[in-house]
Amino acid sequence: MKILLTGFEPFNGEKINSSWEVVQSLGEKNPGPGEIIVCCLPTVFGEGLKKIIAAVDSIQPQLIIGTGQAGGRSELCVERVALNVADAEIRDNQGQQPLDEPIRPRGPTAYWSTLPIKSMVKRIREEGIPARVSNSAGTYVCNEVMYGVLHHLEAGQIPARAGFIHIPFLPQQAIGRPGTSTMALETAVRGLEVALQSALKD
Amino acid sequence: MKILLTGFEPFNGEKINSSWEVVQSLGEKNPGPGEIIVCCLPTVFGEGLKKIIAAVDSIQPQLIIGTGQAGGRSELCVERVALNVADAEIRDNQGQQPLDEPIRPRGPTAYWSTLPIKSMVKRIREEGIPARVSNSAGTYVCNEVMYGVLHHLEAGQIPARAGFIHIPFLPQQAIGRPGTSTMALETAVRGLEVALQSALKD
Amino acid sequence: MKILLTGFEPFNGEKINSSWEVVQSLGEKNPGPGEIIVCCLPTVFGEGLKKIIAAVDSIQPQLIIGTGQAGGRSELCVERVALNVADAEIRDNQGQQPLDEPIRPRGPTAYWSTLPIKSMVKRIREEGIPARVSNSAGTYVCNEVMYGVLHHLEAGQIPARAGFIHIPFLPQQAIGRPGTSTMALETAVRGLEVALQSALKD
Amino acid sequence: MKILLTGFEPFNGEKINSSWEVVQSLGEKNPGPGEIIVCCLPTVFGEGLKKIIAAVDSIQPQLIIGTGQAGGRSELCVERVALNVADAEIRDNQGQQPLDEPIRPRGPTAYWSTLPIKSMVKRIREEGIPARVSNSAGTYVCNEVMYGVLHHLEAGQIPARAGFIHIPFLPQQAIGRPGTSTMALETAVRGLEVALQSALKD
Repeated sequence: MKILLTGFEPFNGEKINSSWEVVQSLGEKNPGPGEIIVCCLPTVFGEGLKKIIAAVDSIQPQLIIGTGQAGGRSELCVERVALNVADAEIRDNQGQQPLDEPIRPRGPTAYWSTLPIKSMVKRIREEGIPARVSNSAGTYVCNEVMYGVLHHLEAGQIPARAGFIHIPFLPQQAIGRPGTSTMALETAVRGLEVALQSALKD
Repeated sequence: MKILLTGFEPFNGEKINSSWEVVQSLGEKNPGPGEIIVCCLPTVFGEGLKKIIAAVDSIQPQLIIGTGQAGGRSELCVERVALNVADAEIRDNQGQQPLDEPIRPRGPTAYWSTLPIKSMVKRIREEGIPARVSNSAGTYVCNEVMYGVLHHLEAGQIPARAGFIHIPFLPQQAIGRPGTSTMALETAVRGLEVALQSALKD
Repeated sequence: MKILLTGFEPFNGEKINSSWEVVQSLGEKNPGPGEIIVCCLPTVFGEGLKKIIAAVDSIQPQLIIGTGQAGGRSELCVERVALNVADAEIRDNQGQQPLDEPIRPRGPTAYWSTLPIKSMVKRIREEGIPARVSNSAGTYVCNEVMYGVLHHLEAGQIPARAGFIHIPFLPQQAIGRPGTSTMALETAVRGLEVALQSALKD
Repeated sequence: MKILLTGFEPFNGEKINSSWEVVQSLGEKNPGPGEIIVCCLPTVFGEGLKKIIAAVDSIQPQLIIGTGQAGGRSELCVERVALNVADAEIRDNQGQQPLDEPIRPRGPTAYWSTLPIKSMVKRIREEGIPARVSNSAGTYVCNEVMYGVLHHLEAGQIPARAGFIHIPFLPQQAIGRPGTSTMALETAVRGLEVALQSALKD
């Protein structure tokens, strides 16, 4: 059983991206069951999606979980749905800022996550780690990756489950940002580990 | 060098109190320099203060740091000042709810913390842990303990430094409280450790 | 030009629903252009949608804007998309609590609002009133009404524009809820008026 | 019966200051009882305080209420206490940034407001307007004015009541600040009017 787990590179002037920190740590821990293959995506419209699709095609994982940083949130957010739109409030790492553009012009308006999102949230919470189902993955690069992968799986009739989880800032990212919620690396890694286990069996 | 470090027992229906969890862990770690003596105070007006004063008199610490839980905050809050008022929005663990009562009828309106609060915040942040100076310790049992200890030290001309730190919820306390900020036990313990070191030398 | 404008009845123990208060006020003001017909929907899965569809069929409006209360938000939220799911965290006014049920089993995953959402937000802000595009109308009765109306229009090839706006609490609803954002009735009414004008011409 | 009501000029790059907008409007409304005299203070350490003391001495009001803008708060905040410290996180309008300086080197640590703060909050809320007692007026120019006036009244044995109220942003100030709480001008003016009436009779 192969699991593809992705995070993003830093963006918007940040020095780190919590998603990649967490994914890297979980990859090193590699707790099983299943083999975790990690991948760091560029925070660039088009490029991030290309890279994850290439990884899906070469690795042929049974489970694909993308992660991204959601600064300001206090909980692990298991995403329910991805929308067929790229609409950026800030520029990506190549200076692009698409506005209200479809990701796949002939694609459906949205794809549901094919992960057991309610079970995942339940199990993360049972570990004492804050989590919730989120009804919006935004309209930035994270949503594009989630939408694009689900579209690729459907188009290619590839029998893998896929979805996305948003991760709060790490504590060090809140220095200089008064009142900002964070989650410790160990907490987020453990939460993601439990989420993976749930995605494999629930 | 003896350090008295206090936390509070759970209140308001909670099963744990983050301040006592953190204080207990740091006491067990006992990283030095200095000997940490921990003490759990009842969340009861009058009783909490009595217990910490008795501990001060018997242990004769050079440094006294009270801690309390501040649910909803995202940072370690090093308190600047304690006010001569008890004004409770919720009942304490014995059902008391004082309203606008002075803690010491002949005491001054307020006492400054005698800790190096700015240095403590700076050093905690250098560890990548969110912290700030707080200008209000509230008007509940935490503020009473901070005010009462500072009054006791002044009245008895006891040459010890004293102050108070508020601690966010632990992650497990946010389950069922959507959108609530938390801090992991390890993060808060490390922050408190650094704060103690700063209070000893800055 | 007929405009159907709906709000919801109070739910979850509230005495009022900000959406209906605002809609009623704007209906009485009736500023033109266009004739505003207002309608108060029951906060009941199935029933709210039935009532608005009946109103659409009998009134035959060219513009349909549903509104709902989004307690805790600080801005008028012009919704981008409605999802084909009913998933309730609290019971509706008839005690129903659907979990992960499709609204229309054969319907698409989502419908885009057919309103000029970016222009609406821009014009509301030009009046000095906080507003934003929202990427999630939730999964409660509001989303059901938005999804169901857009599905009805598409299925019947009815040439009307439709969408949804979420409205913050009114100030009086925050009494007893410390730290909760609100918007004054006059502010929300003016914002909705400008949104309507934008929807008619942009 | 003369009432001195002050607000502050804009600072920190803002074009308006909600406190002066509200104070000006209430002054123009002049609802009685009592004669309201309004005054706009410079947001400058030392200068703001000088100007309000000059006004107190020349007008000889029986009631003095300072107001200031507290961006981000959602409620009218009736301040309980002023601290003898100036500690600025941002520069004032003359570029000054005092750090941990006493306002009056021989003054007490703090002064209580001499207004009926609990009654004021109660009456504002009865109007359906969010309000609360605040235990910190900060350590910026607002706190300096509150502390300095109370010190002036005590030193001169002047039989006037005095205190301070913090006012949220107006709605237009939240444009470009997503998720920021605001209060409409009319709401804040009405709340302040009721607060004044309470201060005169309770």
